[in-house]
Amino acid sequence: MSDQHTPLFPHRHLLGIEGLSRPDIEALLELADKAVEVSRQVEKKRATLRGRTQINLFFEPSTRTQSSFELAGKRLGADVMNMSVSSSSVKKGETLIDTAMTLNAMHPDIIVVRHHAAGAVHLLARKVDCSVINAGDGAHEHPTQALLDALTIRRNKGRIEGLTVAICGDVLHSRVARSNIILLQALGARVRCVGPSTLLPAGIDQFGVETFTDMRKGLEDADIVMMLRLQRERMNGSFVPSVKEYFRFYGLDEEKLGFAKPDALVMHPGPMNRGVEISSSVADGAQSLIREQVEMGVAVRMAVLEALAQHLPEAQHSPNRGSK
Amino acid sequence: MSDQHTPLFPHRHLLGIEGLSRPDIEALLELADKAVEVSRQVEKKRATLRGRTQINLFFEPSTRTQSSFELAGKRLGADVMNMSVSSSSVKKGETLIDTAMTLNAMHPDIIVVRHHAAGAVHLLARKVDCSVINAGDGAHEHPTQALLDALTIRRNKGRIEGLTVAICGDVLHSRVARSNIILLQALGARVRCVGPSTLLPAGIDQFGVETFTDMRKGLEDADIVMMLRLQRERMNGSFVPSVKEYFRFYGLDEEKLGFAKPDALVMHPGPMNRGVEISSSVADGAQSLIREQVEMGVAVRMAVLEALAQHLPEAQHSPNRGSK
Amino acid sequence: MSDQHTPLFPHRHLLGIEGLSRPDIEALLELADKAVEVSRQVEKKRATLRGRTQINLFFEPSTRTQSSFELAGKRLGADVMNMSVSSSSVKKGETLIDTAMTLNAMHPDIIVVRHHAAGAVHLLARKVDCSVINAGDGAHEHPTQALLDALTIRRNKGRIEGLTVAICGDVLHSRVARSNIILLQALGARVRCVGPSTLLPAGIDQFGVETFTDMRKGLEDADIVMMLRLQRERMNGSFVPSVKEYFRFYGLDEEKLGFAKPDALVMHPGPMNRGVEISSSVADGAQSLIREQVEMGVAVRMAVLEALAQHLPEAQHSPNRGSK
Repeated sequence: MSDQHTPLFPHRHLLGIEGLSRPDIEALLELADKAVEVSRQVEKKRATLRGRTQINLFFEPSTRTQSSFELAGKRLGADVMNMSVSSSSVKKGETLIDTAMTLNAMHPDIIVVRHHAAGAVHLLARKVDCSVINAGDGAHEHPTQALLDALTIRRNKGRIEGLTVAICGDVLHSRVARSNIILLQALGARVRCVGPSTLLPAGIDQFGVETFTDMRKGLEDADIVMMLRLQRERMNGSFVPSVKEYFRFYGLDEEKLGFAKPDALVMHPGPMNRGVEISSSVADGAQSLIREQVEMGVAVRMAVLEALAQHLPEAQHSPNRGSK
Repeated sequence: MSDQHTPLFPHRHLLGIEGLSRPDIEALLELADKAVEVSRQVEKKRATLRGRTQINLFFEPSTRTQSSFELAGKRLGADVMNMSVSSSSVKKGETLIDTAMTLNAMHPDIIVVRHHAAGAVHLLARKVDCSVINAGDGAHEHPTQALLDALTIRRNKGRIEGLTVAICGDVLHSRVARSNIILLQALGARVRCVGPSTLLPAGIDQFGVETFTDMRKGLEDADIVMMLRLQRERMNGSFVPSVKEYFRFYGLDEEKLGFAKPDALVMHPGPMNRGVEISSSVADGAQSLIREQVEMGVAVRMAVLEALAQHLPEAQHSPNRGSK
Repeated sequence: MSDQHTPLFPHRHLLGIEGLSRPDIEALLELADKAVEVSRQVEKKRATLRGRTQINLFFEPSTRTQSSFELAGKRLGADVMNMSVSSSSVKKGETLIDTAMTLNAMHPDIIVVRHHAAGAVHLLARKVDCSVINAGDGAHEHPTQALLDALTIRRNKGRIEGLTVAICGDVLHSRVARSNIILLQALGARVRCVGPSTLLPAGIDQFGVETFTDMRKGLEDADIVMMLRLQRERMNGSFVPSVKEYFRFYGLDEEKLGFAKPDALVMHPGPMNRGVEISSSVADGAQSLIREQVEMGVAVRMAVLEALAQHLPEAQHSPNRGSK
């Protein structure tokens, strides 16, 4: 933790990539680079968040995101409490805000929230005294995923500025795509979206991305091919593509990967539908960064937790004896 | 933890408010007043229960009670293990006692139990070697809820002696009401129960409470208005009131609150049915202590854990090297 | 943790009893004897696994095994993360290997796995960088159960060599039986299997055990009577015995226990079907070791965790600063 009175990261919450400046993002990536080393040690425990309480409040289940936040918090020494809310008070008719205010009264320092509704996390952040991290809200944002993707790219390509990144597949239902577009552009990458027109959101041009419906053209000269999970569970009957057709036109196999630059790298936020949006040979191949993305996920979450903890005013003014 | 060989709290278990003396209750409230400060610190970790094992054994789900006990234990340094039993061994036909004895053999120091049957917690306490805390057993008792309510009242009114407390609504199905009646009377409050006659238990007069079926009369001169959750899930078809009718006659809105003293304070154990037993304007209004009750919940559970840990004979005789 | 460069236990994983030498087994039992004392202390916390990450990855629920591993890890100071996979990524179509590789990228030190398919744990161990402990894979092996049974026997009989152990009941569906047969024979016990011919696996003679379909003959001169849970949930309709009939012929009651040696001891891996494979009077009687088995379970898991942690190369070479 820094001795500075001006924290490196000037926000109390991490609700989205939207609203972050380039220096904000770069500060988090630098903290994350250091955090990578912590998890590679035998002794992975730090005292940064000792005596702090982190609550993982998941209204939607997610093995990998919740685990990643849990390990990140524990490795920084926090007391971590998981709450899966689908099976508890929501059944009894308690509202999101009542749940949030109840937790708030228990004096957590950080609440990590995943919720199925876009905007739920912002609403919650306005109500509580502690820091809030968005771990995915509907089809809106998933900022730590975008940060871990950027960290992975930067560590493998040495930079993000000037790279061409093709985000491919089900862009329409993807909070990952949205957060990535904003972040990668903020760091100077050229972003393209590639997919069937039915899965490209109307108005995506406003974000300054190029769109392609043909993989050959979309991947041409790409440095990074970022595949998205086909979210059939979010499709309300209107258009559910056949898996076989989808893979034929949009699934990343070795042939389609050949359209990109020879040193292009492949990413996927997981969990993968093998044989749907990506072939196993590409997912497990030499150009794949998919495993490394998971490792970077823990590091990025450690960085975000540490950055927000720095920002909590109590910690600034009276690190051991402060009262709320 | 105290140096005294006579523990402040002379009981090994906390199974109910029944059986506690006034000094017992006051000792817990004083410990809790100190515990409030711990959770308001930035560094919320104490070493009181370091190396101790606390098991939260919940046969019924409960977000807020389980979370409150989990945070209380973790902040005191215990290793806390949550067990939700509905989905595990009970399916395989294991009995409550086998589950308890299995856990007992793992040498926990404290088991926190919630069970749907009145008496289950007492049965369990007779079988195990460790301390047992009742976190709600059927419609019987919920002692830590009554303690946190008393703590909240005492901190806001400066005393409990001589106050008039109106407990309103579904008294029949409420373990909260039962524990509160016993505790508040032990500390010298006058307790009334107010609700439709179908939701007031037969024989409640034996407890020395006045009963009212009319909110206007029941709330007259009340210092504290304690609303209860309408537990429709516990009503076996016999009498399930219409929500609209119920709110009209027994829901606490600003008009009905006007019947009580001008400085009356409003409480609710949560989770609330807004628009059923309480209006949102009262729940979130200036006279409401509902958020503070949650904060006091963590403090009271810390106090109870600490009090029982003091009482464990091993801790008395050989704090670091004792064997069972 | 040992200073020796040659670890006492030369394996990176514990996938089964098969493949362990007698000295391997005895090294674990000796570590476990010491671990028993840790859980009997007031202060049960050790620093052996401080800063290490243990993931309990359960594809099948199991209250007692998961709890036992969780407490074992926490008492050794590890950060323990539970993952119940039935309700998460598996629903989204992620494969076992993707789940494993995802976890692996988070740098755990030890993964404890229970899976419904024999062989799943071996497959997983080949893919990950960390140590893997088999907590039960289908009807194949359950090595920590066999170790805790051996520990219980050795502490009560002073030896295993030369004892006659009768394993009774549903041997066909039991991974416990399989692991026990291998382990007890490796330590010099004579093992018998007793049960209806439909519940004795074909080819069990190859393992060098005697088989009996009559309890009187099977228990004659037995030092240990080890009852197995009747696993009706694993029987695919082919043969599901009536509970009443089963108890009459194969349930251990006082009369049948009388066939064994007068000082015979009774074991059961739990959870018990009382009145099916064992009577309550025997289960709770003076000859029963069933509670002690649970206590030994935590100790054996602590021993295994400690033994595998010793073996991790990083810990050998650079206990505080090593990198993977």
